[in-house]
Amino acid sequence: MGVPVAARVTRADGSSQRFEDVAAALAQVDSGLVELLYDYSPALVPGCPPDQGGMWRYRDLLPLDPGPIAYPLPVGGTPLVAPPGLRRASGCAHLWVKDETRGPTGSNKDRATALVLEHALRGGQETVSCASTGNVAASLAVGAAAAGKRAVIFVPAEVDESKLALMLFAGATVVKVREGYAAAFRLSREAAKAFGWCDRNTGVNPLTVEAKKTVAFEVWEQLDREVPDVVVAPVGDGPTLCGLAKGFRELVACGVAERMPRLIGVQAEGCQPVKRAWETGASRIEPVQPATLADGIAVGDPVSGVLALRDVRESGGGFVAVSDAELLEAVRTLATAGGLLAEPAGAAAYAGLLRGLECGLVDRTERVVILMTGTLLKTPRFLRPQVRPLEVEADLSALAQVLAEGEGC
Amino acid sequence: MGVPVAARVTRADGSSQRFEDVAAALAQVDSGLVELLYDYSPALVPGCPPDQGGMWRYRDLLPLDPGPIAYPLPVGGTPLVAPPGLRRASGCAHLWVKDETRGPTGSNKDRATALVLEHALRGGQETVSCASTGNVAASLAVGAAAAGKRAVIFVPAEVDESKLALMLFAGATVVKVREGYAAAFRLSREAAKAFGWCDRNTGVNPLTVEAKKTVAFEVWEQLDREVPDVVVAPVGDGPTLCGLAKGFRELVACGVAERMPRLIGVQAEGCQPVKRAWETGASRIEPVQPATLADGIAVGDPVSGVLALRDVRESGGGFVAVSDAELLEAVRTLATAGGLLAEPAGAAAYAGLLRGLECGLVDRTERVVILMTGTLLKTPRFLRPQVRPLEVEADLSALAQVLAEGEGC
Repeated sequence: MGVPVAARVTRADGSSQRFEDVAAALAQVDSGLVELLYDYSPALVPGCPPDQGGMWRYRDLLPLDPGPIAYPLPVGGTPLVAPPGLRRASGCAHLWVKDETRGPTGSNKDRATALVLEHALRGGQETVSCASTGNVAASLAVGAAAAGKRAVIFVPAEVDESKLALMLFAGATVVKVREGYAAAFRLSREAAKAFGWCDRNTGVNPLTVEAKKTVAFEVWEQLDREVPDVVVAPVGDGPTLCGLAKGFRELVACGVAERMPRLIGVQAEGCQPVKRAWETGASRIEPVQPATLADGIAVGDPVSGVLALRDVRESGGGFVAVSDAELLEAVRTLATAGGLLAEPAGAAAYAGLLRGLECGLVDRTERVVILMTGTLLKTPRFLRPQVRPLEVEADLSALAQVLAEGEGC
Repeated sequence: MGVPVAARVTRADGSSQRFEDVAAALAQVDSGLVELLYDYSPALVPGCPPDQGGMWRYRDLLPLDPGPIAYPLPVGGTPLVAPPGLRRASGCAHLWVKDETRGPTGSNKDRATALVLEHALRGGQETVSCASTGNVAASLAVGAAAAGKRAVIFVPAEVDESKLALMLFAGATVVKVREGYAAAFRLSREAAKAFGWCDRNTGVNPLTVEAKKTVAFEVWEQLDREVPDVVVAPVGDGPTLCGLAKGFRELVACGVAERMPRLIGVQAEGCQPVKRAWETGASRIEPVQPATLADGIAVGDPVSGVLALRDVRESGGGFVAVSDAELLEAVRTLATAGGLLAEPAGAAAYAGLLRGLECGLVDRTERVVILMTGTLLKTPRFLRPQVRPLEVEADLSALAQVLAEGEGC
């Protein structure tokens, strides 16, 4: 079972400090980002390919005491797919998509939810809470229902209506905060402390990055225990990319991989505080007002931004920003050329790959994995086909004619 | 590799005939339902628990020549879950849910789509077609995009708008047939023959039941190679239940299971032609005009109805019908007590279980598996929460007050 032996705390200015006492590090949560560290060895890495154990198969590298898993929804073990049409469309002969839409609520947030709720189930906490632009909230609402816990979720006033309906339908207590996401985040932190709730906030709770790092373990196993050259991931708050980085770093630390892949972080043009800091070489992230349709990465003041900067730098990668039009085009290409259903934020890695190829950050001959983080099915407002159905009476010759005309469109 | 050695053809009056020549049986497709048969032996059944191979791990019992799988979307290997809250809500201590919403388009139809497209990829057919009330069509549209094939889909005029948008978005040619589903089905059959398309129509193409039978294999393996006492499944056209039945029957034929589970077929009260035939003892199915909100099982003239009757009879099971209100309540209970997101047709098995318990078809002490066939995320119109979010300004005492009032609702 995984026992963290130390922790690192990183401040908003990018400076960091190692603590040999994990509890002392966790007490710093209000002034920095806490990452858990293990006594790494090859023995911690399981020996067979990923199976139905899903994420829990990596439990020797997760902060978990021994004992059976109580959380009832299987999570992780998502497919790594390589649709030939998508390889042709991108021109990348060695492209894979890590399809994180196969979780209980169709996003990579389901991993973090599972680990946090497993702790709550073991620790006897009755209420879990978070602030979220949508996917984390939907995941926590549904996960808490499965675990028999109460979920209290703080959302900005401009939350996506379908995701809001899902949280409420699953029985969560949902609190709309009028001042927007940053205020919702602060209020949720205060409330968790005041009322003794289990705080699932990504970037605050180190369990979220711990869970998300298992994506890297799976990619490595699915590529026959090889690390790809490049991994492309969306960056909103940051922990999705930081989780990937931590996973690959730990594989190296365990001695089963030789190097990390280059990490490419993708932001929306209308919300690119981390990419801006990357370009200017700033060590702090300057908050912005988000202006993008991709709600999943519309985070103007990303809590884990400095870690994302550090991780991309360490990996030798870079950041790109893509327009809303490129995001919508990526959603369409994933569906029509790959049979893959991603929401705009979930398709950001594909849009970012195209941008990375264009500006020379990625080469077409490299082994590239893009992370597809969230399903299109949860945001039906983006399902706007540009064609209409044909319409006929049930007659073969009428059909033949309509088809001939329709194909011409 | 699986090689069918014989086939059975069943007519609309329930009579059937065995053919030792498989091709001769397949030529009968217009006058009866064709089922493929194998030379059963324990050697055909794989020895380890289900893994990432998904459905293809049972290829020795699937009609497939040797060679690598070309279809790019992983299918099958879905979880068998047992949320404690759902066990409490139903009063069944040994209840499991086979969660088929984890496929590429969130329904059990993805298995049939995969096997049909694998054949099309190997056979070089460029166009695949079907008629569908929604889920089959969405599955085929997305699957064909992944496989680089053209999909032509026939839908009734009253098709669900979200599912229609999904088919079109994925690039399928969609034909609305004004006269409704039965006419759409006939026209699609004629068109496939006239234009040489690969016909994916469930009940016509024996590959669909072949693929769906793998659900039974997985359930059996996931229960440590034991057959449950009862399996509950929705019945629209019939092949979902018939696939389950064929899978369990083949496990018995292979000598690795001793008996089939009792099968309970669930229909909507507003569309229960198979249950009516079951009650009256009729050998033919009398078509009805569907009147239910559960579009996935709104099939008034079910092609495989006689096979569903036969399979339920053979298993010692029965049929139940549930109201639309019971279906919506089942959707809600699965979400709030189980963290499981099912559309109304996908939740029919849970509603049917409650009905079965009530009328004595199922006992609370039995080992019961219910099949959850389709995701709620694809039909957002059923996401109608009965509560509204709370709304506050970012202030802790305001929050405490609103929460105290809100909990009272």
